[in-house]
Amino acid sequence: MNATPKVWNTLQQNRSARLARAGQALGNDLNGKALPAARIKDLLHSVLECGDRVCLEGNNQKQADFLAQALAGLDPVRISALHMLQSVLALPEHLDVFERGVASKLDFSFSGPQAARVAKLAAAGKLNIGAIHTYLELFSRYFVDLPPRVSLVAAEAADRNGNLYTGANTEDTPAIVEATTFKNGIVIVQVNRVVDTLPRVDIPGDWVDFVVQSPRPYYIEPLFTRDPAQISEIQVLMAMMAIKGIYAEYQIERLNHGIGFDTAAIELLLPTYATSLGLKGKIARNWALNPHPALIPAIESGFVESVYSFGSELGMEEYIRARPDVFAVGPDGSMRSNRALCQAAGHYACDMFIGSTLQIDLQGNSSTATLGRIAGFGGAPNMGADARGRRHASPGWLKAGREARGRSNAIPRGQKLVVQMVETFREHMQPAFVEKLDAWELAEQAGFAIPPVMIYGDDVTHILTEEGIANLLLCRSEEEREQAIRGVAGYTPVGIGRDKRMVENLRDRGVIRRAEDLGIDKRLATRDLLAARSMKDLVRASHGLYDPPRRFRNW
Amino acid sequence: MNATPKVWNTLQQNRSARLARAGQALGNDLNGKALPAARIKDLLHSVLECGDRVCLEGNNQKQADFLAQALAGLDPVRISALHMLQSVLALPEHLDVFERGVASKLDFSFSGPQAARVAKLAAAGKLNIGAIHTYLELFSRYFVDLPPRVSLVAAEAADRNGNLYTGANTEDTPAIVEATTFKNGIVIVQVNRVVDTLPRVDIPGDWVDFVVQSPRPYYIEPLFTRDPAQISEIQVLMAMMAIKGIYAEYQIERLNHGIGFDTAAIELLLPTYATSLGLKGKIARNWALNPHPALIPAIESGFVESVYSFGSELGMEEYIRARPDVFAVGPDGSMRSNRALCQAAGHYACDMFIGSTLQIDLQGNSSTATLGRIAGFGGAPNMGADARGRRHASPGWLKAGREARGRSNAIPRGQKLVVQMVETFREHMQPAFVEKLDAWELAEQAGFAIPPVMIYGDDVTHILTEEGIANLLLCRSEEEREQAIRGVAGYTPVGIGRDKRMVENLRDRGVIRRAEDLGIDKRLATRDLLAARSMKDLVRASHGLYDPPRRFRNW
Repeated sequence: MNATPKVWNTLQQNRSARLARAGQALGNDLNGKALPAARIKDLLHSVLECGDRVCLEGNNQKQADFLAQALAGLDPVRISALHMLQSVLALPEHLDVFERGVASKLDFSFSGPQAARVAKLAAAGKLNIGAIHTYLELFSRYFVDLPPRVSLVAAEAADRNGNLYTGANTEDTPAIVEATTFKNGIVIVQVNRVVDTLPRVDIPGDWVDFVVQSPRPYYIEPLFTRDPAQISEIQVLMAMMAIKGIYAEYQIERLNHGIGFDTAAIELLLPTYATSLGLKGKIARNWALNPHPALIPAIESGFVESVYSFGSELGMEEYIRARPDVFAVGPDGSMRSNRALCQAAGHYACDMFIGSTLQIDLQGNSSTATLGRIAGFGGAPNMGADARGRRHASPGWLKAGREARGRSNAIPRGQKLVVQMVETFREHMQPAFVEKLDAWELAEQAGFAIPPVMIYGDDVTHILTEEGIANLLLCRSEEEREQAIRGVAGYTPVGIGRDKRMVENLRDRGVIRRAEDLGIDKRLATRDLLAARSMKDLVRASHGLYDPPRRFRNW
Repeated sequence: MNATPKVWNTLQQNRSARLARAGQALGNDLNGKALPAARIKDLLHSVLECGDRVCLEGNNQKQADFLAQALAGLDPVRISALHMLQSVLALPEHLDVFERGVASKLDFSFSGPQAARVAKLAAAGKLNIGAIHTYLELFSRYFVDLPPRVSLVAAEAADRNGNLYTGANTEDTPAIVEATTFKNGIVIVQVNRVVDTLPRVDIPGDWVDFVVQSPRPYYIEPLFTRDPAQISEIQVLMAMMAIKGIYAEYQIERLNHGIGFDTAAIELLLPTYATSLGLKGKIARNWALNPHPALIPAIESGFVESVYSFGSELGMEEYIRARPDVFAVGPDGSMRSNRALCQAAGHYACDMFIGSTLQIDLQGNSSTATLGRIAGFGGAPNMGADARGRRHASPGWLKAGREARGRSNAIPRGQKLVVQMVETFREHMQPAFVEKLDAWELAEQAGFAIPPVMIYGDDVTHILTEEGIANLLLCRSEEEREQAIRGVAGYTPVGIGRDKRMVENLRDRGVIRRAEDLGIDKRLATRDLLAARSMKDLVRASHGLYDPPRRFRNW
């Protein structure tokens, strides 16, 4: 028999103790849930405990930067060995916590701008990587085996009761706060302003413990803005092939685009080229996508019917507010995004994902991981994977499934289109096609169990380059697959190494299709086909509603 | 040039018109957002429009039954052709709306108790099925191409401002309300009581348009309760094989169980058999699962560390409240569930799904669809599918991936364990193994594009029967796979049709393992091994905190 009965509310007790310490540390400076910005380190020193799992809201876009800075400035003698949970590492402070010994472990999704420093700190033993995740996977673990003990998030505004208004950049906040609150953790939020009445409540006040008004508005990155002036004619040609050879053929109505000039070119060709093909109302109607400015002409022309978003995009606020039929806008008139739900939508409610990558190997595996950079993949693994739990049919999904099955006896099922769109050579004449991904060597360097692949070859259905489209669904062997890939790899060593006869055979069978096979006149592939050729054109198309960030204004 | 500029806020205008009509119809009976129950039909007649997409909260458990009844009683001359969106069709009223011509189209996930009537109404042309979905897929479409125009949901309580408290059965409500509110739809909620102060806010009041206090508390089904008295010794044996041959071998720490006596037996063997094997703290620690009463002994013994839930379970309220370290409990002390987030967790944060089915074919495809019943599959397709977007590693996931890859050159990747656990013969001596699924004929009858399969064979990793475990990961050809399945199919026609030599070879290679191959002494497979053998035992194990529904009390 046990003499002492098991205690079942250690989390509640621990939460109370933390709140009591905070009350003591802040004294009269704590006004309800609100504290002055100057006392933030005292709050963190009092509520944090060594070894805590701490979720710091680093999103794709908005950043809890004031809290990140405070955390990085803590005394490592008092607070150390934190286990950071973070979708995105974007700011120097996100790594400073490791450099300074405040934190030691990291589970994350994306570290684009900080990837080299992540690799360096990991090599130096200052940062122990738990794992790299796709966003929805990381959020999922917050609810199962990685509940945050303390979360540091960002919102637009709070009222006196701690109710939060996130505005259009809701992003990760609801998932983080829900996981923390309902495991008796502590939620601390930085807000741009404290007000009497919020436009609407995005997060209920009783899910929030502390509110601090940041000395400056949170930092936000216009990550999805692409200046049409930088779109090349090669990209126009590739966009034409995508529209005619894939969107039209599979009747893709619901979709997601990756970031980049390749897909921006497609967005800008919808009102022109796609409309000339009679595709309006037939393709690209419902989107799971951030409010890309390049989408404005397609929205204005009535091509795009709805857009549901992971986050928002700087400068698009007034445009969104004026187009409530298109975006997910609340009764207050402003948008709400939700990265968790939009990733679910990208996975389960879209027929196609199309995006770019840095390297593709002979099996079609692709990765943006390169040596000395531990970058992660954000949402791509989730969207660029066949949703095998999907059960509703659509014409494109059924057609892809039929093509994949061929004459085999396997039971019929559909398949998601996953398109990788790359020029054969990327910047600095680096070939996009390689015999072996850098991911292998990176895995060895960093001690990963397996190489960090962004999209696995068996999930990729099409590879599109300026040389044509390789339809991997129609390949019937590993060898055919390899030659189909070589066949669109142009003058890269991989392309030059093709078996010419086999590639011609694949072309005869329609596995490889060149622009001319698709009936595309390459002479039309000029920038004139773009519905907007500059940022100014986008502003004009928006009737002056789009307000691009300063760095994109060159007029 | 267009003479009339495009209107971009038709949804907002339409919402205002609906609210104005409701105000007019209800007059002084509308007190803020609250209306008397007697006026519910007037509200629905005024806010609904013919052809509306209407989301009616029919969950696995709680039901917006008062609103369902009101909807079914509307005048089909005034309101018709509604397009119903519903996770679960559980109540007669859910079909009455079609029978009476109020609704005509349906997108759904599960219709277990009403499956025969769904088939009948579909055949009669009164119900046009859009598609069958897995839950998370259906929610995803609410945000992309099927936003509800009007949603009818259920909550425990509301305050005067329309803030909602859902209590432990949060379930689908947040996803439905978010999709509706942020597309300028109308949200109507039935509550058990209107109070001054809520224990906590689960849904902000400004996401809610109308509140009606139902004349009786919402109906709720204790769907996940299994009386241990009904567990057979065969099920005990199968549970032993599962624990020793799968959970232990793959070190499964994070998992989801299907509903049924098979998995309840496993839950009840954790504190006894699994503990005797030294597995405590090594397997089955973190769960994505409803609060199954059969889990109580494993929780009490410290075997189970955390449970995150889709919904709650009747009678478990006080037990959950007293075990806040284990469940997702808020600062107010009661649980919050969330079906959307828990399905994401089941997909991305679990190493294993184990569940049962009605039929398995020779390729390992399984289905619960039978002739004359259009039942859907709920969450199983989502949980019983490899999460191909997953990127974090665990020992079991890596091992499954290695086994699947064998000596092939494919790039390393892990794989989720998906286990189908069935006795070779189910009720009425129907064989669980068949040459061809009934789903084929059902698809033809109902005009589906493809047969409704619950879990596809290429996602299934293990099939477990009283005859042993077939490890499909180790099969290297379609033929081996077929023989591995036949090899555990016992005396069913499929089992009798095995190639004896090939099956013995598969056993030698460890592809098939019998109880004796696993070192399991069948004589120990008695009900004595169950940690609880009756409902009374479960109550006792819970220290009187579990309060089973009346129908489960036989003392």
